[in-house]
Amino acid sequence: MDMMNLIKKLWPLKRSLVSDDYDKALYCLAERAPLKISEYPSGTECWTWIIPEQWTCHEAYLETLDGKRLINYHDNPLHCVEYSKSIDNIVTRDELFKHLHVHPINPKAIPYVFKFYERDWGFCCSQEQKNILNDTKYRVVIKTDFEPGMLKIGEWWLPGQTDQLFILTAHLCHPFQANDDLSGVVAGLEVMEQLAKVTNRYYTHLLLLVPETIGSIAWLSHHEELIPKIKGGLFLEMLGNDSPLALQLSYFGDTQLDFCCKHIITEIDKNSYIRDFWTIIRNDELEYNSPGLRIPMPSISRCQKPESEFWPYPEYHTHFDTPDIISEERLTQSANTIFKIVKAFDQNFNPKAKFKGQIFCSRYNIFPRDPEKYEIFFHTLFELDGEHSIMDIALKHGFSFNSVLKVINSLISHNLVSIVRK
Amino acid sequence: MDMMNLIKKLWPLKRSLVSDDYDKALYCLAERAPLKISEYPSGTECWTWIIPEQWTCHEAYLETLDGKRLINYHDNPLHCVEYSKSIDNIVTRDELFKHLHVHPINPKAIPYVFKFYERDWGFCCSQEQKNILNDTKYRVVIKTDFEPGMLKIGEWWLPGQTDQLFILTAHLCHPFQANDDLSGVVAGLEVMEQLAKVTNRYYTHLLLLVPETIGSIAWLSHHEELIPKIKGGLFLEMLGNDSPLALQLSYFGDTQLDFCCKHIITEIDKNSYIRDFWTIIRNDELEYNSPGLRIPMPSISRCQKPESEFWPYPEYHTHFDTPDIISEERLTQSANTIFKIVKAFDQNFNPKAKFKGQIFCSRYNIFPRDPEKYEIFFHTLFELDGEHSIMDIALKHGFSFNSVLKVINSLISHNLVSIVRK
Amino acid sequence: MDMMNLIKKLWPLKRSLVSDDYDKALYCLAERAPLKISEYPSGTECWTWIIPEQWTCHEAYLETLDGKRLINYHDNPLHCVEYSKSIDNIVTRDELFKHLHVHPINPKAIPYVFKFYERDWGFCCSQEQKNILNDTKYRVVIKTDFEPGMLKIGEWWLPGQTDQLFILTAHLCHPFQANDDLSGVVAGLEVMEQLAKVTNRYYTHLLLLVPETIGSIAWLSHHEELIPKIKGGLFLEMLGNDSPLALQLSYFGDTQLDFCCKHIITEIDKNSYIRDFWTIIRNDELEYNSPGLRIPMPSISRCQKPESEFWPYPEYHTHFDTPDIISEERLTQSANTIFKIVKAFDQNFNPKAKFKGQIFCSRYNIFPRDPEKYEIFFHTLFELDGEHSIMDIALKHGFSFNSVLKVINSLISHNLVSIVRK
Repeated sequence: MDMMNLIKKLWPLKRSLVSDDYDKALYCLAERAPLKISEYPSGTECWTWIIPEQWTCHEAYLETLDGKRLINYHDNPLHCVEYSKSIDNIVTRDELFKHLHVHPINPKAIPYVFKFYERDWGFCCSQEQKNILNDTKYRVVIKTDFEPGMLKIGEWWLPGQTDQLFILTAHLCHPFQANDDLSGVVAGLEVMEQLAKVTNRYYTHLLLLVPETIGSIAWLSHHEELIPKIKGGLFLEMLGNDSPLALQLSYFGDTQLDFCCKHIITEIDKNSYIRDFWTIIRNDELEYNSPGLRIPMPSISRCQKPESEFWPYPEYHTHFDTPDIISEERLTQSANTIFKIVKAFDQNFNPKAKFKGQIFCSRYNIFPRDPEKYEIFFHTLFELDGEHSIMDIALKHGFSFNSVLKVINSLISHNLVSIVRK
Repeated sequence: MDMMNLIKKLWPLKRSLVSDDYDKALYCLAERAPLKISEYPSGTECWTWIIPEQWTCHEAYLETLDGKRLINYHDNPLHCVEYSKSIDNIVTRDELFKHLHVHPINPKAIPYVFKFYERDWGFCCSQEQKNILNDTKYRVVIKTDFEPGMLKIGEWWLPGQTDQLFILTAHLCHPFQANDDLSGVVAGLEVMEQLAKVTNRYYTHLLLLVPETIGSIAWLSHHEELIPKIKGGLFLEMLGNDSPLALQLSYFGDTQLDFCCKHIITEIDKNSYIRDFWTIIRNDELEYNSPGLRIPMPSISRCQKPESEFWPYPEYHTHFDTPDIISEERLTQSANTIFKIVKAFDQNFNPKAKFKGQIFCSRYNIFPRDPEKYEIFFHTLFELDGEHSIMDIALKHGFSFNSVLKVINSLISHNLVSIVRK
Repeated sequence: MDMMNLIKKLWPLKRSLVSDDYDKALYCLAERAPLKISEYPSGTECWTWIIPEQWTCHEAYLETLDGKRLINYHDNPLHCVEYSKSIDNIVTRDELFKHLHVHPINPKAIPYVFKFYERDWGFCCSQEQKNILNDTKYRVVIKTDFEPGMLKIGEWWLPGQTDQLFILTAHLCHPFQANDDLSGVVAGLEVMEQLAKVTNRYYTHLLLLVPETIGSIAWLSHHEELIPKIKGGLFLEMLGNDSPLALQLSYFGDTQLDFCCKHIITEIDKNSYIRDFWTIIRNDELEYNSPGLRIPMPSISRCQKPESEFWPYPEYHTHFDTPDIISEERLTQSANTIFKIVKAFDQNFNPKAKFKGQIFCSRYNIFPRDPEKYEIFFHTLFELDGEHSIMDIALKHGFSFNSVLKVINSLISHNLVSIVRK
């Protein structure tokens, strides 16, 4: 999959939560991947939430009283606050400024602002644009529609040996934003493509492409019967720029999935870092990890450290978040990391010896002469009680997951080990 | 309640375990508080213990052979060892000195000495008095009675929503001792007065005023059916002088009650300190924490650190333990601390979300705009699994108990949280 | 038992796994101790293992082509690789060297080499001997027999109050090796002699003298019904030389048996050291600790630290491992240490108070006046909940096992404590 070109294609679309352009983006993806699209009508109650109406912005501009247009939605859709209501009025400068949003740090950036559930009106512009608004009155015109619509979710199902589920998810919304989170969307598609080529997948894998938060709530609340079957998941975001790989652990922080993430990400990227749940960046993984569900869902991103002034990245939620800050190389490295995590978690079970005592190696011709392999072989042997996972063994003894897996697979081929899934 | 005046009134009474003056003290308190008085006759077997006889000292003096009185019980009741048997004899200086007790450090102090279960005779005086006893023989006269009597316990019951019990206890015995432990007695009464004003108390609260050790044993052994219902308690002692507040944890040290004590005492008094069970001072809490009961009962006192030469306080168990070393201010601070602990423990439950996923804050208009409140609100939200208490959440995230309680109460008012008591 | 003389008597025997000399050694021991001898025929399948054939070496020598004998099995049986197959051939120097084993470090040592399951041929000599083998061809002659035989195990059973088992084991094989492991064999016999004199042993004690690994596998696989009854064991090895006592913990490392070992060995020998399972030396304890059995079996040896260049000891697996490196004094200290561990484990139970609250000491006249005994007495009292073993109490409070045991026994004599075995 050419991730970079896909981002370039989808980036200019005005992908609001429920909107024509969001739907266009999803249909475009459905041409490239076997996505099933599920729909949830506006007004539907989803747990404590309600699906919003479809929002369309026809035009939005700020004029001087003599008709000079200063800010225009058609120049850049970020100029209009997302889900703004309509207005056509002469307002004072003071009144305008209450509804005019700028970026807190970058004076050149048009910020991305949304007010999904407030029924307010508003404009966004750069601080530099704002600085020259010196008239006492301005004309403000916003023409938007709120209509019943359909919130749409793209689902890519890859059935495995079991109906227990592993979920990858990213959000497809945010108009004119590239890294946040088209990068997560295309990385997720890439990982699914790679997974599709793996035989003997244990879990059923599901990629969910959603509008942020409300999409996850909508899907989960309509699939309550599946929740006990979801054994884990990953939220994917901001994966295409140059920031270091960042792993935000699940609520528990010490599940087998967390261990897989830690092990793989540390192995792959020396510059990566790991933090607790909630402490790097917050998105749809919140719903999965929440008290009523407690599905372990770490989040993988490329993100400056939270203590950095550029956290999460300088262009975040501005009109500078364009395909220019993303590279195919970074996307590929991100996707490969995620694929390895998902694969390790899929291959991670509790091996249990079918034999008692030590194995009579001479009989099976499996005695490892190489000193390093000897260590891995015998330490692994002594953990085959069905209580330790392959990842547990790797972590306990400082081996790589794959080196332990190799020993286990060799023993399985001699019918000396059985597989316990807990 | 005027704690200081009450101490002054009770202090001069010769409050032995089972004695007229102990009874007088208890009846005096019963005029001020709704005390139920329970009685246990001498000779009653209480687990491995036996209730002692009532003890009365009519007189006790040491004379020179020519009739000059040197030490006289009527000058100070501490001069006679508590529960001493009678004697009327001429004894050698050597023999006398085997029965004459002085303070190990302070040469001016008359020590408080008791021999409840040894049927020995003895006098106490200051080292300075002893130094001038240079005659070869002395006359010793002690006239005491041991008669069947009634050990008495004062009980203040404050019924709550449940019959699960929380116990406050202090000992009323020790003749002529003020800080040990009339301070605990009056602080306990003060806390109960404050508790009585609190509506919706969950636990039934019970204040027990007892003669030390044997009183607790007597009450507990006669209320075995209540023991499983006692969810915790506090022993109160030495609360009126200038020593720092000291928290001695329960046997377990890590119960919810221990957490409440630690949290509140640290919040209130920067100079307070915390130690393990058994390591500060030992009193009636020993019985509650013992293996057969294992009721968590920390102890709260004002006490020099155990490694100090003045431990527990300079006047401890001497005739200098008078109302002069106590202040109303210290008593009040102590009682307020204890009240806050008891209240926090009473309000501490495991909140459980009635919703799934995150809450749709906009719907309930509960989104916290203030950054600090935002942190408390959302961290609390993610702990609402019914497995974490309010105190657990506060400790885990470094919030105050009350700030978390406030979030929970707000959610309860929207019917979003249910109460789990474990 | 005169351990040193017994080692001298058995040391010269060519004790291969299944061999006449191994049998001779075992019969010799059976004259001194009540050993029951069990037998397992060659070819018997024991879990994944198969009992090897009896091996006899009639002669083995290396000659120059003109008949000068350079290496001769009859000079030293280590010259022939154990379980070597027969050969009678002229071989090139290169070919010879592929089958000629020397010691990796000590140029004067003839190494002890075995190839039990490879059906190869081979000689061993010192590096110095090898250095002068400059001919281009040599004659090699080895005449050995592989015949059906009987693997033999010596069992010393000491019945206790229960049929739950505690196993001591050491291996009797290894030709011409003294410290490895005749020292373990005689120490085991000495410990059993001492145990036999102890009345009221709780466990049934069993000493197993075996050929290494295959002997343990043979016995365990033929006594599967006993495995759940084996509550622990000790492997004994290399106990007669001057190296420090070394404790290798069980797989778990934190069982009551591990605690007993740690406590006793630290108390007895300041120079002793303790390491995790697998990290000092590996022998028959591997089978017991393996995943299918998980019987806690620490190993006790005298061993240089694994990081030392002389690990496990300089003479290990060479013809220098003779009685000369062993002393009766070291053997006795080793045996006494092991006896104390076994005894402590046998006496270690969970004491449970029959009383509630504190004990009324005055009634039983058990109040400890000595300050140190006071500490031990009262701390012990507060742990009598049936959940803590005597060893747990000793470790928690830093007391010696015996000092806590003494308190418990005193309480038992007053019928104040019951015994819980978990």
